[in-house]
Amino acid sequence: MERIEALAKISGKPGEVTRVFATPAMRRANKLVAQWMREAGMEAHVDAIGNLIGHYAAERPGARTLLLGSHLDTVRNAGKFDGSLGVMLALACVEHLHFRKIRLPFAIAVVGFADEEGVRYQTAYLGSKALAGCFNEKDLQRKDANGISMADAIKHFGGNPAKLTSARLDPRQLIGYIEAHIEQGPVLEKNNLAVGIVSAIAGQTRARISFIGRAGHAGTTPMSLRKDALCAAAEVILAVETLAKKTEGLVATVGEIAAFPGVGNVIPGEVRLSLDVRHANDSIRKAAQRALKQTLLHIGRQRNLQLGYAVVQETATVNCSAYLSRLLGQSVKYRQQRLVSLPSGAGHDAAVMAAITPAAMLFIRCQNGISHHPDESVKIQDAEIALDVLNNFLQLLAQTYRRRMVATGRSKH
Amino acid sequence: MERIEALAKISGKPGEVTRVFATPAMRRANKLVAQWMREAGMEAHVDAIGNLIGHYAAERPGARTLLLGSHLDTVRNAGKFDGSLGVMLALACVEHLHFRKIRLPFAIAVVGFADEEGVRYQTAYLGSKALAGCFNEKDLQRKDANGISMADAIKHFGGNPAKLTSARLDPRQLIGYIEAHIEQGPVLEKNNLAVGIVSAIAGQTRARISFIGRAGHAGTTPMSLRKDALCAAAEVILAVETLAKKTEGLVATVGEIAAFPGVGNVIPGEVRLSLDVRHANDSIRKAAQRALKQTLLHIGRQRNLQLGYAVVQETATVNCSAYLSRLLGQSVKYRQQRLVSLPSGAGHDAAVMAAITPAAMLFIRCQNGISHHPDESVKIQDAEIALDVLNNFLQLLAQTYRRRMVATGRSKH
Repeated sequence: MERIEALAKISGKPGEVTRVFATPAMRRANKLVAQWMREAGMEAHVDAIGNLIGHYAAERPGARTLLLGSHLDTVRNAGKFDGSLGVMLALACVEHLHFRKIRLPFAIAVVGFADEEGVRYQTAYLGSKALAGCFNEKDLQRKDANGISMADAIKHFGGNPAKLTSARLDPRQLIGYIEAHIEQGPVLEKNNLAVGIVSAIAGQTRARISFIGRAGHAGTTPMSLRKDALCAAAEVILAVETLAKKTEGLVATVGEIAAFPGVGNVIPGEVRLSLDVRHANDSIRKAAQRALKQTLLHIGRQRNLQLGYAVVQETATVNCSAYLSRLLGQSVKYRQQRLVSLPSGAGHDAAVMAAITPAAMLFIRCQNGISHHPDESVKIQDAEIALDVLNNFLQLLAQTYRRRMVATGRSKH
Repeated sequence: MERIEALAKISGKPGEVTRVFATPAMRRANKLVAQWMREAGMEAHVDAIGNLIGHYAAERPGARTLLLGSHLDTVRNAGKFDGSLGVMLALACVEHLHFRKIRLPFAIAVVGFADEEGVRYQTAYLGSKALAGCFNEKDLQRKDANGISMADAIKHFGGNPAKLTSARLDPRQLIGYIEAHIEQGPVLEKNNLAVGIVSAIAGQTRARISFIGRAGHAGTTPMSLRKDALCAAAEVILAVETLAKKTEGLVATVGEIAAFPGVGNVIPGEVRLSLDVRHANDSIRKAAQRALKQTLLHIGRQRNLQLGYAVVQETATVNCSAYLSRLLGQSVKYRQQRLVSLPSGAGHDAAVMAAITPAAMLFIRCQNGISHHPDESVKIQDAEIALDVLNNFLQLLAQTYRRRMVATGRSKH
């Protein structure tokens, strides 16, 4: 928890926690965590896209690797635990082994992902996509709000946009990926439980919407002659809310809005919006997306505005590894008796990593389910339980792994 | 028209016309127009708040002064004619007299007001308020979007915030204020007329609205537990539009919106909006304002949000001087036969100047009524007609003035 506090002080904006992809704040965070990694017996390096990776060797060379981690970037004005807690727990697991001089039959790589939130380039999971080898090279041309391309940002950060494939991991060398993360929702708290297992990571669609109407003088343009893009946006915002409210399990959000020229006495001639739609059932999410697109077309036609609509990210629902989740669940039951398994409404790097290796997640209760907000809060007791569960899980996995090696003749003992 | 083009090149943002109060662009504009003033036989100076004033002496010292002018500041990404055309016409009137070596029984002061649009500090008419002696000293503490106080902006511009009273004009020395301005609406164009007389300047209310809810994770916060400030704002925007549409002659606009933290995957915890309401009948405007405030309270209660509402500017409807308008109307009829008199939905410095001296306005047709937009357009023929009307008006006023002086014994001839 002290490390969490120290990390929270590293921010691009004083007075709040804001660590955005490929910024000086991220560099300082990587540097600090790398130092802790080395103190915990790991070799640490930053890869071509900016992920921090700490390597804890197996009992013998050539063994496969278990990935443990989460992300070190944050949203703007974030809480302290989203992402950071998972990296700190992974670090503490290795520290636990290192101080006891324990080596496992597999190596452990602790990963601090460079960009999970997608704040800077509106495309999330850049770090895990690089490791999973599904990074889209076209994204390198994207520009941030200051017009800086992703390629330039990576270069300036010390990475190598031309060699992102060097960050790719060989799936054959991997055992799996385990991510501990705050729940960011109210289910564990309602169940009075410190931790729980994630069954699946809900699919999500992120889109950008724009309307172009006509700017005009707010005092002299009669209401009947206006083409007010902001009024259209207002209809969209309410339609998004209405649809989500009436669809069980659906969450849909407009988080970003900008009106142009954005002056009190000028009718907005253009408006841009973000849209975020999630559901654990892909077909329900897609139906919602289709319905919203129809609504957008209808609003644009009714108001005689030019509509822009582009899906910038689409992630299918990802089920967690049954095998790793079972071991993780056993460890949970050993420590807190009752086991709850829940879908994650938030996206996680685990969803991307699942494409190349079995992935599982442990959720940790957070106060009032609040996240992406300075009020984000986790009890120290809950973090301790999570650490015990992970330590226990590593022990169980090592036992199972040794048995399997014996069974398949891969062990030389 | 060449001067209009030259002025339009002076902008704080390349590629568009943006001249905001107390900025380097305003300084360059003042410098250029001052040079033209001097070439037209005037003495030019910039007053304590940044108004540019050119003085053309009367036929004898001690005579009173007629003010002619408009504003030199613009909205963001503005047209070329709003404000500038009025200053250029006033300049051309004096040039016309100067080249013919004509002196009138009154002096003429051509004014280029420093801030009519209120873009930088959300409080308009700063320039005319300083001349009229109704500048609110408290406004000096206001901060712009970069945190620069108005006092500092004025100081940095070369003015003197501590001595704004030095800019005040003595009403007893004034004959009146005449402002030529583009209509910024469709009435003259519909009537197929180049110019028209303004009957009154519609009253206006500008307010700032805010809602504070609770930010949260867009993926994990169920719809039923949200306090989304942007959804409340959307309801407000549509309520404003609906009320204005059903109230004859009312225009109401939300031109500015900002959602915080303003990220796609975070529920907006706070939203700020501008509101602009105008009507030529003050009681109708006030009733609309009351109705909207009730709607705001209702939305805030329903959604359990904290509501902020502050009126930042309120201007009553101002009737133009019957006497000056009659002379102006005679000049219009002489040049274009048919006279139309219309209320102005836009606010103008004339509304402020009317507090200390009789004020009248001449409107000039603009294409499609478009203003506050780069497409703003005025025909050169219409500008010529306006100039003829103003020249003729000065002649009529001089004649009437001389007759009056004789009648009241103020003339020594």
